[in-house]
Amino acid sequence: MSGDGYGADVEGFHAVSEAVAAGRVRRLTVESARLRHDDYQRLVAAAEAGGAVITRVEDTRPLAATGAPQGVVATCRPLAYLDLEDAVGLADPAVLLVLDHLQDPRNIGALARSARATGVPVMATPGRRAAPIGATAFKAAAGALEHVAVAQVGSVADALVRLRSAGVWLVGLDGAAERSILGLDLLTEPVAIVLGAEGEGISRLVADRLDVAARIPMQPGVESLNASVAGAIAMFEMARIRGWIS
Amino acid sequence: MSGDGYGADVEGFHAVSEAVAAGRVRRLTVESARLRHDDYQRLVAAAEAGGAVITRVEDTRPLAATGAPQGVVATCRPLAYLDLEDAVGLADPAVLLVLDHLQDPRNIGALARSARATGVPVMATPGRRAAPIGATAFKAAAGALEHVAVAQVGSVADALVRLRSAGVWLVGLDGAAERSILGLDLLTEPVAIVLGAEGEGISRLVADRLDVAARIPMQPGVESLNASVAGAIAMFEMARIRGWIS
Repeated sequence: MSGDGYGADVEGFHAVSEAVAAGRVRRLTVESARLRHDDYQRLVAAAEAGGAVITRVEDTRPLAATGAPQGVVATCRPLAYLDLEDAVGLADPAVLLVLDHLQDPRNIGALARSARATGVPVMATPGRRAAPIGATAFKAAAGALEHVAVAQVGSVADALVRLRSAGVWLVGLDGAAERSILGLDLLTEPVAIVLGAEGEGISRLVADRLDVAARIPMQPGVESLNASVAGAIAMFEMARIRGWIS
Repeated sequence: MSGDGYGADVEGFHAVSEAVAAGRVRRLTVESARLRHDDYQRLVAAAEAGGAVITRVEDTRPLAATGAPQGVVATCRPLAYLDLEDAVGLADPAVLLVLDHLQDPRNIGALARSARATGVPVMATPGRRAAPIGATAFKAAAGALEHVAVAQVGSVADALVRLRSAGVWLVGLDGAAERSILGLDLLTEPVAIVLGAEGEGISRLVADRLDVAARIPMQPGVESLNASVAGAIAMFEMARIRGWIS
């Protein structure tokens, strides 16, 4: 979708470590005082071995987009967005997480960790009116965004039409749905799990295209969960039903 | 533990709405422009009916502890911390979430939402070297901290000893454990679910006191989850096994 890619700026120890392991880091800036610690020494050595330029500074916070870069910020070769049709082939049976305009990049990062933990190989997210896959998302992902691919889509509703054409069933999380996501047989089939935005939930246009709306079962009177928690419950249930986690 | 209580400062639409519903709001400051919206008008009317002093301002952000107060900040009558022994009696069979020095108040807020959704009536957290139950936690909780109680403990390890004396089994989440939390029979008994800090996990002293260490099953090679996601998976599994959610 975009020729520019994503993930050029990465901050935080775990996120930068995984970017170094992926061979993406071109410049690594580290706080001198951190180099007393073995783990930071190893990180810098690995980055240097990978051809990164190392810069030592007193404080990385003035350079950082996140509030707590943990003494290390990296400039990286960007990752390329995946085409949606290619994303379908990454798992068998296919599984994707589709984000309907999530606003908090920390939720996107946490969702990437849960996606990696459950074998979901790709997240689809719109390029506009949604949280960017930038430094905050990468930090919250703690490295998982090096392993879980991102497909950028112009319109979530159109993406769902394309996924259905590719033989993927569309299951959306909706607190008002009757059916529970727990034990949902359809999760064994090729499936996209569609997650609505914080507060707003799934948009009407997207809801109209779902094959199944399902809810996370909860105690009576409770309205909603944190978006990254709701997505995690659905992905873990998919992985449990498929026998992908043990 | 502390005579001062917690929850005096509450920000964000959902969090403030639930504080108003709980009758705790003494002063409510709202952005004038928000009053074009019915939901903000209703919120202000409810706060006024409850005896709160209303102040209208151009911008609430300079007054706010969180970055995005959504145009409304409240000063409230504090909530009282619960005694740990009283906390045991809140559910039958008992269930508590024990936080071993979590550092991110947003995780504590998200955990409160999941606790409420699954019927966990109380979280225990240490008063020192842990994230405060302040405006950031309340905002992330989106109202759930008006419904889920907090027990403040001096030492997590001592708290576990007291809980065991009260007949509560101690189950800790540990990524290195052999046993899976999914299907764990002990979750039907009176139980405390013990969650370690972000990055660090459960401390050695706390791990030594557990009856059972259990892990969230994941794909091979994955180290850990977001702390609020790990706690949510455990609480939902408890609620599923007990038949508390449907």
